[in-house]
Amino acid sequence: MQGIKYYLVVIATTLNFIIGLTSMNLAQTDALPSWNNGQVKESIIKFVTDVTTQGSPDFVPVAERIAVFDNDGTLWSEKPFYNQFAFIVDRVKEMAPQHPEWREQQPFKAILEGDTETLAASGMEGLLQLTMATHAGMTTVEFTEIVKDWIGKAQHPRFNRLYTQMVYQPMLELLTYLRSNGFKTYIVSGGGIDFMRPWTEKAYGIPPEQVIGSSIKTKFEIREGKPVLVRQAEIDFIDDKEGKPVGINKFIGRRPILAFGNSDGDLEMLQWTEAGDGSTMMAIIHHTDGEREWEYDRNSLVGKLDKALDIARSQGWLIVDMKRDWRQVFSFD
Amino acid sequence: MQGIKYYLVVIATTLNFIIGLTSMNLAQTDALPSWNNGQVKESIIKFVTDVTTQGSPDFVPVAERIAVFDNDGTLWSEKPFYNQFAFIVDRVKEMAPQHPEWREQQPFKAILEGDTETLAASGMEGLLQLTMATHAGMTTVEFTEIVKDWIGKAQHPRFNRLYTQMVYQPMLELLTYLRSNGFKTYIVSGGGIDFMRPWTEKAYGIPPEQVIGSSIKTKFEIREGKPVLVRQAEIDFIDDKEGKPVGINKFIGRRPILAFGNSDGDLEMLQWTEAGDGSTMMAIIHHTDGEREWEYDRNSLVGKLDKALDIARSQGWLIVDMKRDWRQVFSFD
Repeated sequence: MQGIKYYLVVIATTLNFIIGLTSMNLAQTDALPSWNNGQVKESIIKFVTDVTTQGSPDFVPVAERIAVFDNDGTLWSEKPFYNQFAFIVDRVKEMAPQHPEWREQQPFKAILEGDTETLAASGMEGLLQLTMATHAGMTTVEFTEIVKDWIGKAQHPRFNRLYTQMVYQPMLELLTYLRSNGFKTYIVSGGGIDFMRPWTEKAYGIPPEQVIGSSIKTKFEIREGKPVLVRQAEIDFIDDKEGKPVGINKFIGRRPILAFGNSDGDLEMLQWTEAGDGSTMMAIIHHTDGEREWEYDRNSLVGKLDKALDIARSQGWLIVDMKRDWRQVFSFD
Repeated sequence: MQGIKYYLVVIATTLNFIIGLTSMNLAQTDALPSWNNGQVKESIIKFVTDVTTQGSPDFVPVAERIAVFDNDGTLWSEKPFYNQFAFIVDRVKEMAPQHPEWREQQPFKAILEGDTETLAASGMEGLLQLTMATHAGMTTVEFTEIVKDWIGKAQHPRFNRLYTQMVYQPMLELLTYLRSNGFKTYIVSGGGIDFMRPWTEKAYGIPPEQVIGSSIKTKFEIREGKPVLVRQAEIDFIDDKEGKPVGINKFIGRRPILAFGNSDGDLEMLQWTEAGDGSTMMAIIHHTDGEREWEYDRNSLVGKLDKALDIARSQGWLIVDMKRDWRQVFSFD
């Protein structure tokens, strides 16, 4: 029995190896079809080849191939404002009948009256109030259903597409390419962890346990004999700026070897990645395409890219010029 | 090319299938050799078979096969006191020359003088002081080195073995058995997340990103031009009791279908698992073997098992009787 099994294993391994070679050849031609040929695409392929080639001085074992991606502006669009903010606005409108007091209470009143000026003036404090009113008070299971329901029907105001269609085709290809090369792909976003987890697996192939984000506290309770986790109106963790390396260390416990971001909020994550031993790749998505997407950097309120752009240039990080480097932006283009 | 590849794939798949069958037969005979035959072992195998058999009413897709394990007293011994406490004691002694003030300051003085009575009397507050003095103040990279150094040489006082040898052989087999059946195995422990992560991959085959535990805060800083995370003397999260479901939701974002614990600190994790849809397995390791390991439950300070034992019985959870169900306890037995 052992003898036969041994021969079967040898034959199967050999065949798998040959299949692997032919697949690799196919993959090398086609892995990133939405990326224009040029230095950026070449750099990505060279990096992945170097860290995955056994015997290469830059070889990295599979377990350590951790790749982290910001979400807003890196994997999907973040204009005219963060998509999670559209969720908040829709939720306030939907919940308003149960909250008659909101008709006289800012910043809720501003949303109900479409008064964007007052809304903007409410600033961070207003945003926090709106977030807690729409994200806390229910169980985790209930909140997941609310998000699933919204993401399944809400449409982006400019493109009239589902938000999950507002994801970048070149980045989807990159995620798939990395995973087929043994990378574990993570989201590390300032957005809400529980806002992302219900749909990232379907949209990006990234499962909930590989999504890191900002969070509010939850509390264990027994309700009618059944345990539930109730979402509390209290910040647990802000996964932005210097919070990103903190979140990476907390959730993953390993340092990434590849990091993609697009704004100053990603700077510390990129620096933390760069400081690792061995070969690393840090990249910035530069929004340069006002026609197919948006054009913004230093003066944008959402996704401001200023200091991180200077450092990316001085450190020689990869700068993806959306207009130049992406043949296609969205999958529906 | 495509034609040849197709035939190779068919042949390889067929061979892999045959190999799979023979391996399965072997596995069914041998997967849990350190477990005595009986109801407990049968229940485990039945559960795993049910949730992994396509077409079974209890079938669970691979992505949702999440298994969580307490660490202290569930995967490794926790007597005469938590192993992490031995680390604290050794660290205080090692750091004492740099802290002459400890010779007059409790609870440090008690450790240096071997005064266990005063040490015990210092209670939770004393423990917190000792933890912060030994776990905070350095970078995350430095702390990992300190733990690796200690775990590589420190010995258990009763068995004179490395602490990583104080792991339960039946549980190692169970972890391997589950992983070979598509489960993702997690540790969910009240112990320090950064105390466990440096050695769990080698000891249990559980990588750092699948270790959840208690934590202190870290702070991102640039030191001499290089980014570091500095460990702060401030609690971030206590992963015990009602903290366990909170931690599971935060880190994994999915509900487990299998949970093993051994003390009242695991009760809420087991309840949270039980409340899921579909087939679930909840288990308690009952320490009943004073000869080969230890015998304790309701009256133990470390690993107290009281309320959870009653609920386990009334709910029909699996109760592993160490003396009856384990043929072998440690790998060195």
